[in-house]
Amino acid sequence: MRIVVLAGGIGGARFLRGLKVAAPDAEITVIGNTGDDITLFGLRVCPDLDTVMYTLGGGINEEQGWGRADETFSVRAELVGYSVGPSWFTLGDRDFATHIVRTQMLDAGYPLSAVTAALCERWRPGVRLIPMSDDRVETHVVIAGDDVAGDVSGVSGVSEKAAGSGGQAGPAGGRSAPASRRAIHFQEWWVRLHASVPAESITAVGAEDAKPAPGVLEAIESADFVLLPPSNPVVSVGTILAVPGIRAAVEAKKVIGISPIIGGAPVRGMADACLSAIGVETSARAVAAHYGPRLLDGWLVDTADADAAGPDVDGIAVRARPLLMTDVTAAADIAAAALELAHEPT
Amino acid sequence: MRIVVLAGGIGGARFLRGLKVAAPDAEITVIGNTGDDITLFGLRVCPDLDTVMYTLGGGINEEQGWGRADETFSVRAELVGYSVGPSWFTLGDRDFATHIVRTQMLDAGYPLSAVTAALCERWRPGVRLIPMSDDRVETHVVIAGDDVAGDVSGVSGVSEKAAGSGGQAGPAGGRSAPASRRAIHFQEWWVRLHASVPAESITAVGAEDAKPAPGVLEAIESADFVLLPPSNPVVSVGTILAVPGIRAAVEAKKVIGISPIIGGAPVRGMADACLSAIGVETSARAVAAHYGPRLLDGWLVDTADADAAGPDVDGIAVRARPLLMTDVTAAADIAAAALELAHEPT
Repeated sequence: MRIVVLAGGIGGARFLRGLKVAAPDAEITVIGNTGDDITLFGLRVCPDLDTVMYTLGGGINEEQGWGRADETFSVRAELVGYSVGPSWFTLGDRDFATHIVRTQMLDAGYPLSAVTAALCERWRPGVRLIPMSDDRVETHVVIAGDDVAGDVSGVSGVSEKAAGSGGQAGPAGGRSAPASRRAIHFQEWWVRLHASVPAESITAVGAEDAKPAPGVLEAIESADFVLLPPSNPVVSVGTILAVPGIRAAVEAKKVIGISPIIGGAPVRGMADACLSAIGVETSARAVAAHYGPRLLDGWLVDTADADAAGPDVDGIAVRARPLLMTDVTAAADIAAAALELAHEPT
Repeated sequence: MRIVVLAGGIGGARFLRGLKVAAPDAEITVIGNTGDDITLFGLRVCPDLDTVMYTLGGGINEEQGWGRADETFSVRAELVGYSVGPSWFTLGDRDFATHIVRTQMLDAGYPLSAVTAALCERWRPGVRLIPMSDDRVETHVVIAGDDVAGDVSGVSGVSEKAAGSGGQAGPAGGRSAPASRRAIHFQEWWVRLHASVPAESITAVGAEDAKPAPGVLEAIESADFVLLPPSNPVVSVGTILAVPGIRAAVEAKKVIGISPIIGGAPVRGMADACLSAIGVETSARAVAAHYGPRLLDGWLVDTADADAAGPDVDGIAVRARPLLMTDVTAAADIAAAALELAHEPT
């Protein structure tokens, strides 16, 4: 059995851990979102790829769901000592090592897909993890210009100089005229502002010119079916689907999605803020309708949303069951239900 | 009083700490050796500049004389986990932060002198610290080709790929034909091989095309005198003097040197291996003769070397006194003796 999963970070990683239990013999290819990637301190950080890699490789901080277990924070303390920002994005020492290795390989000319494969030689996640694209795609969020006084890069001269290296999140320090708009990196909106400032729009910058990474389309084409884990439908799954060629390849397959919305709210994260930016209601039914019947064949919703979802959505087969991934067993049960739905005759 | 000091690492830094006590009102400019600099894990490491900065700024690991106090080693453990080498060069987490900030600024286009000034804004070393040059100069050591099986970059595929980023120490993995020669980065010879393989020659690669960093020549020209601390005469002071223009500027000044050789042996490090590579005997007198009377006006030797040194060397005024820098007070006493010699009428 060949399965392709389009994954964001925590939700995708935890679902995948369950899927490996539910389908131990399956050949699983994970196409990872890279729209959240960001260059910090001159180092390339790929939060979603790393969350999948660490979670499946046994290195994740279980409690927070991202970052490394047994982490230390000496580098961060020193960067604060140098007044080098941004200070709102926390990287631990162990995590820094991953970004150092990745950046060194990228600088040496290796594409992100090759770098990811090399990093996975250590972590042995038990899946094939491919970034959606080797090209740079960065999700930006347009907000009202005077909602945020710029503080992207810290406070001191060192920081301002360092920030010149490019890749920093958004224009630093610039207070725009009132009522103007500015685009900030997704991470600045998500991590620094906790998505508390309304997003006028969300764009995957560079997506239209990006090519799927080597192996992505081939994996989808040869898959028995594609799963959409309970990842953010806008900035995780949506961004992967925005890379030209991927949506069409996925649409040609049987696709089963797992709702990231339980009881009318995101399980974690602030997917509601992303959904409202694209005019989609925060409900399991609305997300299914957003994906649409061209893409989606089956849709798992939580029992709490069974009524709201109705028996079917626009020809998408809807099944209800508990969807809280409280532990690996619960995630495995959910994955098994998704596999079952995938095997139902259409 | 304006003093210029040409400094290497530990010996230079400890002498400078004494000099600040002995001459609290002096305007001290330190011209730092950058020939030992190396790119490791894609990050630019400047061991001598950092040792001066950390020592004078209160961040040094007192016991070992280099690296940071209260250091942790999480990043290093992870790099080992990724099989990314070299493993013979130990960098702590706090130290890594310095190299991350430096590399980010260098990548942003700032010259090393500006980066060093920015880093010193935090450390406030109480001296003006300028790298000898903003141009890349790297000390390489020529050894017999089959003395060393290459193991510069570690063992795994990740490492080999990462090493492609350039700036690594020497050609990795290549076992040359017997009796051939190979040039390796100074750090590989010094740190990995502990200078145990005889150096056939030592070259400051790039020195002939390097320009003194902004402010270097001006500082020397406006100095009342120049001090050569007990740094390595070959790979520290010698490399600084190899940058075109610096030697001539220094020769035009009154110059007092402090012997790094005590009792016919280097106090620390393996200066003897460097001296023998250039055909100079490991003695206080021979080092003075190597610097020569065009450069050197006065020479402080240890009492243990007073007899061997004789009253004067080729017209260089020699004074003997204890030279072991056992603590800051001892270093201050030595610095005071150097100042006294500098103020003797020629």
